[in-house]
Amino acid sequence: MPDILVRLGAAIEARKGADPASSYVAKLFAKGEDAILKKIGEEAAETLLAAKDGDKLPIVRETADLWFHCLVMLSHYGLSAADVLGELERREGLSGLQEKAMRPPS
Amino acid sequence: MPDILVRLGAAIEARKGADPASSYVAKLFAKGEDAILKKIGEEAAETLLAAKDGDKLPIVRETADLWFHCLVMLSHYGLSAADVLGELERREGLSGLQEKAMRPPS
Amino acid sequence: MPDILVRLGAAIEARKGADPASSYVAKLFAKGEDAILKKIGEEAAETLLAAKDGDKLPIVRETADLWFHCLVMLSHYGLSAADVLGELERREGLSGLQEKAMRPPS
Amino acid sequence: MPDILVRLGAAIEARKGADPASSYVAKLFAKGEDAILKKIGEEAAETLLAAKDGDKLPIVRETADLWFHCLVMLSHYGLSAADVLGELERREGLSGLQEKAMRPPS
Repeated sequence: MPDILVRLGAAIEARKGADPASSYVAKLFAKGEDAILKKIGEEAAETLLAAKDGDKLPIVRETADLWFHCLVMLSHYGLSAADVLGELERREGLSGLQEKAMRPPS
Repeated sequence: MPDILVRLGAAIEARKGADPASSYVAKLFAKGEDAILKKIGEEAAETLLAAKDGDKLPIVRETADLWFHCLVMLSHYGLSAADVLGELERREGLSGLQEKAMRPPS
Repeated sequence: MPDILVRLGAAIEARKGADPASSYVAKLFAKGEDAILKKIGEEAAETLLAAKDGDKLPIVRETADLWFHCLVMLSHYGLSAADVLGELERREGLSGLQEKAMRPPS
Repeated sequence: MPDILVRLGAAIEARKGADPASSYVAKLFAKGEDAILKKIGEEAAETLLAAKDGDKLPIVRETADLWFHCLVMLSHYGLSAADVLGELERREGLSGLQEKAMRPPS
């Protein structure tokens, strides 16, 4: 069974050309790049705020919102969760310190 | 085979009590909540900047950084990727518009 | 003549108890802390997006939005632009490197 | 006496071509656009975190950091605090609701 992130990515992909009135995701795609990216800023901020409150359910919900909008963003650029999960697999086993040393400064 | 996010979460969990000098993740945990949350703000900003440039590889890397630091944050609060993926599964099949209508305003 | 930030701060202060239906600022105060802080995250993200586009007018507008919502936030905590400007004056003349060295790591 | 934001902007401007080893601001300019913009994301996140803690001094300091890095960003794009303060003056007297109605959606 495909991973939920992969399934969600496919659902997002399918809504790309849909009527903006019928779907939240189609509406975001219709608004374009900045609207999609702005949501990532918003959801990251909401994740921080929920985290500072320390209540588990809101933290889970806001992180889910953040990841969901990352999937929309990835789709906008012709990418998918598989690309990000592949990158994380590539790094797996490396310690974070090795990893940081291997990468050019970001 | 467990999902890469689940495996990574377990690796993060295992580094929780490790020597901060030996691991990037152990160092983050030792610095505490605000250091962990600050990283989410940073990586979200870097994701936006990479996205505006439009080059695929940096977008993938920055999104991977963002998700990775979300896993660290989830672990800090006794949560895991499984909680977030479960929340996304719960929402699956709901259209975004239905979903927004179902949730209390955040 | 008082500084525009000080005048705006006074105007924001005056709307604190106003009818939320009559004023954007009163509405924000009525929604509470997280709504106010979320706006700072949003406006910071919009500032980054405008900056990456490089067009001057949107950069000015988004920075103005960001500073305006900082004034609302300051007011929420019983602070004002004068406090922030005073802090900046205190630092004036210090080079950034000295300044960073003087402050505890944030 | 010129406004502290204007004076700081002039000091930042003066460090633009300075030796990166001698000045935090010169170092930021040498690193370029993304480094400058990343700081705005970071300082916005730190402002949110300080605000959630509710202690006045850290809120003032983080907001000062955020405004300071906005001045650096403005300078990078050939803009200054005067442009942002002018925009805020232009809006002055408009209620927030009128203001929002007047502006194109951002």
